[in-house]
Order: sequence, then C-alpha cells, then structure tokens
Amino acid sequence: MPIVVQKYGGTSVADAERIRAVAARAVTTQKSGNDVVVVVSAMGKSTDELITLASEVTPNSHPREMDMLLTAGERISMALLAMAIEDHGIGSMSLTGSQAGILTTEEHGHAEIIGIRGDRVREGLAEGKVVIVAGFQGFSPETRDVTTLGRGGSDATAVALAATLQADVCEIYTDVDGVFTADPRLVPGAKKLKEISFEEMLEMAAAGAGVLMARSVEFGRRYNVPIHVRSSFHGGVGTWVKEETMEEAIIRGVAHDVSEAKVTVHGVPDSPGLAAQLFEPLAEAGVSVDMIVQNVSRDGVTDISFTVARSELNTAETVAKLAADAIGAAGVDVDHNIAKVSLVGAGMKDELGIAGKMFRILSDHGVNIEMISTSPIRISCVVRGDDVAAAVQGLHDGFALGEES
Amino acid sequence: MPIVVQKYGGTSVADAERIRAVAARAVTTQKSGNDVVVVVSAMGKSTDELITLASEVTPNSHPREMDMLLTAGERISMALLAMAIEDHGIGSMSLTGSQAGILTTEEHGHAEIIGIRGDRVREGLAEGKVVIVAGFQGFSPETRDVTTLGRGGSDATAVALAATLQADVCEIYTDVDGVFTADPRLVPGAKKLKEISFEEMLEMAAAGAGVLMARSVEFGRRYNVPIHVRSSFHGGVGTWVKEETMEEAIIRGVAHDVSEAKVTVHGVPDSPGLAAQLFEPLAEAGVSVDMIVQNVSRDGVTDISFTVARSELNTAETVAKLAADAIGAAGVDVDHNIAKVSLVGAGMKDELGIAGKMFRILSDHGVNIEMISTSPIRISCVVRGDDVAAAVQGLHDGFALGEES
Repeated sequence: MPIVVQKYGGTSVADAERIRAVAARAVTTQKSGNDVVVVVSAMGKSTDELITLASEVTPNSHPREMDMLLTAGERISMALLAMAIEDHGIGSMSLTGSQAGILTTEEHGHAEIIGIRGDRVREGLAEGKVVIVAGFQGFSPETRDVTTLGRGGSDATAVALAATLQADVCEIYTDVDGVFTADPRLVPGAKKLKEISFEEMLEMAAAGAGVLMARSVEFGRRYNVPIHVRSSFHGGVGTWVKEETMEEAIIRGVAHDVSEAKVTVHGVPDSPGLAAQLFEPLAEAGVSVDMIVQNVSRDGVTDISFTVARSELNTAETVAKLAADAIGAAGVDVDHNIAKVSLVGAGMKDELGIAGKMFRILSDHGVNIEMISTSPIRISCVVRGDDVAAAVQGLHDGFALGEES
Repeated sequence: MPIVVQKYGGTSVADAERIRAVAARAVTTQKSGNDVVVVVSAMGKSTDELITLASEVTPNSHPREMDMLLTAGERISMALLAMAIEDHGIGSMSLTGSQAGILTTEEHGHAEIIGIRGDRVREGLAEGKVVIVAGFQGFSPETRDVTTLGRGGSDATAVALAATLQADVCEIYTDVDGVFTADPRLVPGAKKLKEISFEEMLEMAAAGAGVLMARSVEFGRRYNVPIHVRSSFHGGVGTWVKEETMEEAIIRGVAHDVSEAKVTVHGVPDSPGLAAQLFEPLAEAGVSVDMIVQNVSRDGVTDISFTVARSELNTAETVAKLAADAIGAAGVDVDHNIAKVSLVGAGMKDELGIAGKMFRILSDHGVNIEMISTSPIRISCVVRGDDVAAAVQGLHDGFALGEES
C-alpha cells in the first residue's frame, strides 16, 4: 500500500476545530487507499507560551530542561489529533520522537537526526492505524535524553520519516499554497510552481524562500523523497519538490532575504592565509557566514566583504575587528540595511547571458549592486535594503516569470 | 548519605514564584546533607485545562491518548523546577515516569505501580544532582505506552520511589499542616497529630481523611517508608506516618466522609448465596462498595444496605434493581443524604467500651445511627448528612481529642 507522510504546522492545529479538520484529511487520505503517518507541530503559539513560562522562572539557559519543557507542546497536539482520528472509527496512535525512534545528536535545541528506527510506526501502520508522530523532537541514544531539532525541525522529522518508511510522498501542509516564482507579498503576479527540483529548492531556501528549510529539502534529495508543499486550508495541489522535473526551467524563481547584514574588512594586506585568519575565528565564535566576496587586490591591499544573519552581527563585528587588528587591516565597516536578491533555475547552467541580463534589469530599475555571488544554478546580488521590492518585482517581470508556461 | 524524597502537589508549583520556592527548599534539604529526589505534580489547574481541551476536540473516551495528553502537565512543571534548582548552582535533572523506570499495569487512567527500576534516579544522585521525577505517570512494559496512575497518583509515585531507593523519609508537601484529629474546617479545636501509625492512617484515609490516599499509605506500610506530611507554605514539622508510634492512642482522630450514598435492598429471602448474587454483578459493573450491613433475618427475609461513592450511585441502583428482581427481593431504596463518621485508634483494640461511648455521644447530640461497621481499630457510623458537623464535633469533644497530650 502506498505510504503518505503528512506534516502539519502549528497554525494547522491551533484549536479544536482545526485539529478535527486535520483529522478528517488524514482519514480521507487513508480511505483513499494509503498508509498514513502524520507529523505534527505544537498547537499555535504554545511553544512561545512555554518559552515565556521558562523566562518567568529563570533568566538563564538550561538546554536539557528547555527541551524537556518544549516537547510537552507536540505531546498535547498529537494526543488530541489521535483522539479526533479515532472519532472517525479509525485506529490511531500518537508517538513521541523517542517512541518513534527518532535518533538525534545530543545538542539540545538544535539536534540533528542521525537515524530513525521507526519500528512502532511500522507496527501501527500494519495494524491499520493512522500513526501520529511528534515533530521537532527526538532522542539522543548517547545521553538517553529528549532533544529538539530547532527551526524547521518538524519538516525535517517528516521528510526523514518518509525516507525511512520509503514513503511515496511527504506532504508538507502550510499556510501558503506552495512555492511561488517570488514572494506573493512583494509580487502580486507571482505564480505558483507546479514543480521544482531538489537542487533548485535548496538554492531557493538558502536564498531566503521561507516555505521549506534547506535541511528538510536536503533529506528529500539525499533519499529521493518527493515533497508536496500544499495548503492546509483548502488542500488543493501545491508544488512538488522532486528529483527530476518535467521541464528544466531557465529561471524557476526569484528569492530574497532581508535578514542579513554585511561586514566589510578594508585594506587587508594581500598575502596568503589572511582570509583564514579572519574566517576561522568567526567559525569558532559560531557565526555562520553566507556570501563572501573579495575584490581584486590594488596596491597590495584588498577588501573582503561577507554577509551574516543580522542576529549574529554583533558577534561578527567584534571578531572581525580583533582579526583585522591582528592581520594589519585598515578597519571594519558594518551595514545593516542590505537585502539579497537571487535568481534560481537549473537551466541557467546551459544558458548564456543570464547574469548580464539580471544586472541590466537591476540597473534599469535604479538598483545598485553591492556584492555578487553565483552557483551553477543561482545568481545572488546584495542590494540596498530599500531596493528589495523594486529588484524582485523588476526581475520577476524582466524574466517573465508570471506568465503561463 | 540520607535520601529524602519530597513530593509537591499542583498548588505548590502553580506559578513561577512558587516553583522557585520549591527549588529553594529542595536545595536547602540537599545542602543539609541529604540526597534529594523531588516528585512533582502538574502546575495548578493545568491538568483540568488539558481535560477541557480534550473535551473540545471529542466527546468520546480515548484512554491511551488521554494519558499521552495529561502527562504533558508534569513534563512542564518538572522541567521548570529543574531549571530553578540549577539556578542555585546545583545540578538537576528531570525524568519522566518512563525515564525514571516507574513500571505500571496497562490500565490507562488508573494504572497501578508494579515496580520501579530507578537506575537513572540513582545515577543522578550519584552525580550530586537533585533529581526531579514526574508524579502521576508511568510506563507499561507490556504495551510500551505511557500511563497515568489516577487520583493520588503523585503521592503513590513518591512513596513507591522512596521505598525503591530505601529513602529515610518521604515528605508529602501539601496545603494543610499535617494530619489532624478531625477536619479543622468542621472542628476549630482540632489538633495536629505529631505521629500516626500506618494502620491508623489507612483507616483514616478509607474513612474520608483526604490528606493522603490509602494507596500511598499502603506502599509506605508495606516497605516501611516513614511519610512526613507537612505544609508547603511554611515547611514546619507536620505529621509523621510510620510503623511504630511513641504512644498507642486509644482514639487518634475522627474522620468523616460525605461523598457516599446508601443503597438498601429490602425483603431479601434469607437463603445461601443471595448476597453473592447482589455483589458480584456490582463488582462486574465496576462499582466499588464500601460498607455492607445485613440485618438479622426476620420472618425468613432480611434487608441488606451498602454504601458506594455518590458518583457510582446510578450504576449501583440499576444493577441492584436487576439483582433484586432476580433474587426475589421486595425492592431497592437509595439515599443520597448520608455521612459516615469514624473513630480511629490503634489502642482501641485493647480498650473496652469505646463503641458504647461513641453511640452514647452521638445519641446525646441527637444524631441517629443508621449503619455501623467496625474494624479492630475503627468504628464507623452512617448518619444523616445534615448531622455530620454535630457528630464530628461531638465525638471530638467527647473523646477530648483537642486537649494537649
């Protein structure tokens, strides 16, 4: 029998009525002839409420106990969902991350899935049950403690579980209709994509398209699990993320990211090993660097710019200043007001002139380019933060992404 | 090192401030030179809130999922408590019933503890940690599912854990100062007992003294774990429940119970086996019968009266009527308006005339006795519900229980 893994986020199970709606959809999917596993997040804002509760008790960080606390959230939503499914006369069973055998590393708050046993999930399916699995949580075999997976964790649970069960599809139910050619809030004419390849989706996610986190797409790619991103409100067909797409688009979409800031180290002496002396301390400080651009050297010195999440800017600036002193650079500038705009498309690698056309379009819209970075299937430009809407809309129009294909 | 198990109910951990107060007490106990294990209930009304949430989702009973749902409650309180303890610079670790190895039968909602592994509790203590264990919950090795222990479950967890760890004392923190000679709400002059034997406490609990459930006292008696019932508000010395008491009191206290109702089957033919035909079906219907009184036979027929929890009265009446028809009895009466008043004291068994004195006192206060039942250390009378205050006060005065001993 085909196996379908469905994942519902917190908004989809925010109250009793929505929980019954999710139950009805899972039951319908089962009655259509599928084995159904449902991965569920905590209800609505309940995770935030638990975090608030912890902040009332303590100002300090208690990673193990925070995970123990937060995992109460999915426990509530999954038990209620199992009840609502049983009300349809269908057997159901909720399983914690630990019971489902979601094995993780031991880093509390941002554990990585290292394997899935899944015995009880398979047993439940064999008994004809709709099996509910808590998203976002797992179990470290090393410490025997409960862990959480961090941002996008429930999606990761769902895709990894689908890979383990060799599911036919992993359906990610969300509050948008699918993956769009651009963010519809910026571009009213943005078009929902019927399909997108794993590679393109990875680039879109890394470039700021928020609908799926890169870690779950990577799981899907590695184990070839088709992911269907669709609306939890109407259940219509959304966007399929999969290995091969029907047609290789030159440009699949425009993504943008306004969550980053830029750091520039000026007057870096152009000698071997100096870049390492800058970026190694950043990595040690836990700063995740996105784009790095180094200009050609002039008069024996160069400038190095890089982007980081704005939340990590203070750390990055401190570390960069220490490193700049150590290597004899002239100074460090930071810039909060930037945006990254990216074109993504697998067909790009066989097509000449895409970059030139992109730069021309941005220029025509009066958008200045501050940094450029490319991959075989992506071109990203850092622009002024205030220019992001014009840049995205301009590129979307310029590459005719809103037209029916 | 001495081991102290402390149990705190929901009121004691109802908000962040109280959680910090509990943490401070646990830390003080550890610093006084003890290994400390804390058993904790869900915060305040949170269990009720979870039950309400379930009732919004479904009108039906889903025992397994209800236990999954309710066990989120202790998860929250125990994680917060562990954080508050760590804030004192003392290591702490919260453990679910399952992690602590609380093994139970598989009856969801009213499981019985069948054993405790406790390895992780011992490991935590060996590492110098204050170990927190979720009360009320366990794990069925048969089904590998999470279970709850029902009413008084957290006390049972604490005493059973204390028995397993061979703790020196199990401290039950509650919203009263200890065990009293009578309910202070009825008898303003009631006196807090310094100590009471397990047998007396079992009789008091069965007779309606609400401070401790019989199941946890029974655990304490069987494994000889001294229980110290004390106030969570001021932490003063409360009442010790233990094997041997300094002096064997003739009367330890007066207990009363207004939660029961009486069923009378009239005109039962006085032939062998008819009582079984009445009480077997009651047991099969899950009705728990407390007192049973059968009058002497007159003219070949007799009356049988029994008391049940008022919540089970409807079932009891239905079953009793069917049984009455089957055995040719004359009819069934029910009476909602009764109370049970009991005298308890281990010295009673060596003292003549206690029963006679009790009946005389009740009569002097105009209280009519409807049923009588005795054990070696208890005498219980069923009286009119409206007479309960007069009966308890009268007996308390008549046996001089409020005077300094």
